Amino acid sequence: MPEIRQDPLSSRWVIFAEDRERRPNEYRLARHHRHASQCPFCAGHEADTPPPIAQYGRDGRQALGPVQTHEDWLVRVVPNKFPALVGHDHAADDAERTRPVPPCHPGRPRDLYQQRPAIGSHEVVVESPRHVASLTELSHDEAMLTLRAYRDRLRHLRQVHTLRYALVFKNVGPAAGASLEHAHSQIAATPILPVELQRELSAAETSYAMHGECLFCRMLEQELAEERRLVATSADGIAFCPFASRTPYETWVLPRQHASHFEDQSLEQLADLARFLPQVLERLERLHPRLAYNFFLHTAPFDTLPLHHYHWHIEIIPRLTTAAGFEWGTGLFINPVLPENAARTLRD
Amino acid sequence: MPEIRQDPLSSRWVIFAEDRERRPNEYRLARHHRHASQCPFCAGHEADTPPPIAQYGRDGRQALGPVQTHEDWLVRVVPNKFPALVGHDHAADDAERTRPVPPCHPGRPRDLYQQRPAIGSHEVVVESPRHVASLTELSHDEAMLTLRAYRDRLRHLRQVHTLRYALVFKNVGPAAGASLEHAHSQIAATPILPVELQRELSAAETSYAMHGECLFCRMLEQELAEERRLVATSADGIAFCPFASRTPYETWVLPRQHASHFEDQSLEQLADLARFLPQVLERLERLHPRLAYNFFLHTAPFDTLPLHHYHWHIEIIPRLTTAAGFEWGTGLFINPVLPENAARTLRD
Repeated sequence: MPEIRQDPLSSRWVIFAEDRERRPNEYRLARHHRHASQCPFCAGHEADTPPPIAQYGRDGRQALGPVQTHEDWLVRVVPNKFPALVGHDHAADDAERTRPVPPCHPGRPRDLYQQRPAIGSHEVVVESPRHVASLTELSHDEAMLTLRAYRDRLRHLRQVHTLRYALVFKNVGPAAGASLEHAHSQIAATPILPVELQRELSAAETSYAMHGECLFCRMLEQELAEERRLVATSADGIAFCPFASRTPYETWVLPRQHASHFEDQSLEQLADLARFLPQVLERLERLHPRLAYNFFLHTAPFDTLPLHHYHWHIEIIPRLTTAAGFEWGTGLFINPVLPENAARTLRD
Repeated sequence: MPEIRQDPLSSRWVIFAEDRERRPNEYRLARHHRHASQCPFCAGHEADTPPPIAQYGRDGRQALGPVQTHEDWLVRVVPNKFPALVGHDHAADDAERTRPVPPCHPGRPRDLYQQRPAIGSHEVVVESPRHVASLTELSHDEAMLTLRAYRDRLRHLRQVHTLRYALVFKNVGPAAGASLEHAHSQIAATPILPVELQRELSAAETSYAMHGECLFCRMLEQELAEERRLVATSADGIAFCPFASRTPYETWVLPRQHASHFEDQSLEQLADLARFLPQVLERLERLHPRLAYNFFLHTAPFDTLPLHHYHWHIEIIPRLTTAAGFEWGTGLFINPVLPENAARTLRD
């Protein structure tokens, strides 16, 4: 059973998951082992993953029953075989249609070292039955169903009272921590509110109290007006290199219309994003073919109703530099590329 | 001129240093380019670095004047050729023997985006005239003079009123962000208190207020009593894998005797550390030959006198795993090796 521990000094949490050392890593294998015939995410290899949590068919509908052939699915959600968080009981969820009051377990007086079971879930979204490596190679239907899967899983997981948050994220390329090439995302649900979200929510709330406006909406307005850091726009979205980008070509994607919870987006909004997000990633990949990157979705926590002060967004982090002792020791980043220059290159 | 910018959302600071993209990286060059004859840190190549800030001779004394031959030095401190922080005037320092009241420049009302010049310094400590890669290959004199250089530079830099902190750190191996193989450390002085230090100081102060004891001293006591995470001890020091280690085999080195400022250590204490630190690193290197790692020194900020609640320490971070989207998006870490198991392996 994985456990989660807190460092008394930095308050940071660490998940200990000893099973994950056994993960296969196809990037470490010889090149001839990497073709589709051995990929557990390809059509025809459905038995190589645990039974699916959800599957989406060609008609765009969710097929929950067992699929007969690989013709039947475009996107599927399966449990991670080497999960960092486990123990959240999928079967029990169906009973919990509304989020109950979470139980409180007062413990012994605060010890120097805090730990608890790493209860949660860790799911994989396989984005295509074909062996493609990038979200930019997906059909519109596949991209749309991938975003549908994100939304549906968040709507489901937020019902579970032991969970406070779920991060949707993506690792592309070995330098970004990916172990498999086939296009996929992950959804990791945690029993605590992760510190990065805590910090954002707290800054956003303070800013709202001071200005009576959402911090993200202020940022959008300034980026649209200044244009210097703008990368691209769509009907519903805007992409820009943030003012204090941590890495060269870091890019954020935000909805123009204020919305705190990704899972409240309409199908029309998802369809716009399913076109826009691959366009933004394509600009990055055109600049750096086979770019290694991570992206993640920041959305409001499960135990909140729509918030005035928070705004969901996607952060894309290209992995062109290596964090070294300075970054680890200070928490500061060193970036050799100004976001204004990065955005100009990505626009052209 | 590098600048430093703050993200309004996370409050994190990023240093933009466009020059650093021009850094040479010998690890990317062909293998036959990597021998000592082209290394700028080797004896005989003194002209390949900027003029030294400090040099330590074989007699253990600091030779500030120009050295005639490479026979004359064991350890030298030179400015980083591709600095992340610049503009702190070395010549002007000599006038400032005591730390004056820092000038206050009230600016315009708080803008959405904050930025300022990245004033500071970025120095390199060359740890040996010989082309060795690891601190474990240094002679005792070289290790001792390296620690002396850390202490002397911290004592010097803390006099400069524009500086609030300096991080001493080390990158070993390309996976840890090193671009040169020759054993060296770096000292980066910043005009702000880095966020990792802010967090530690704040947790330490809260804990001191609650318990009337230094948090680090409490930790030492518990680690010595429990023994499960202990790696090694010396007369003055203790090394253990912290309870919430971020990476496999993360190891911290602390002085047994409470001390907030590294620069206040005596020569006897440094001599003990000059033996102990290589012994600890040797345990890690024996387990993983040519291990890539970072270490950094956390010490109290320049504008403090000896503190009851803070305790200097060194954190060693082996780079055996890659932070991926989950870590970037949540601020949580996933570690496949429990510190109790890591410490047992390192002890044996």
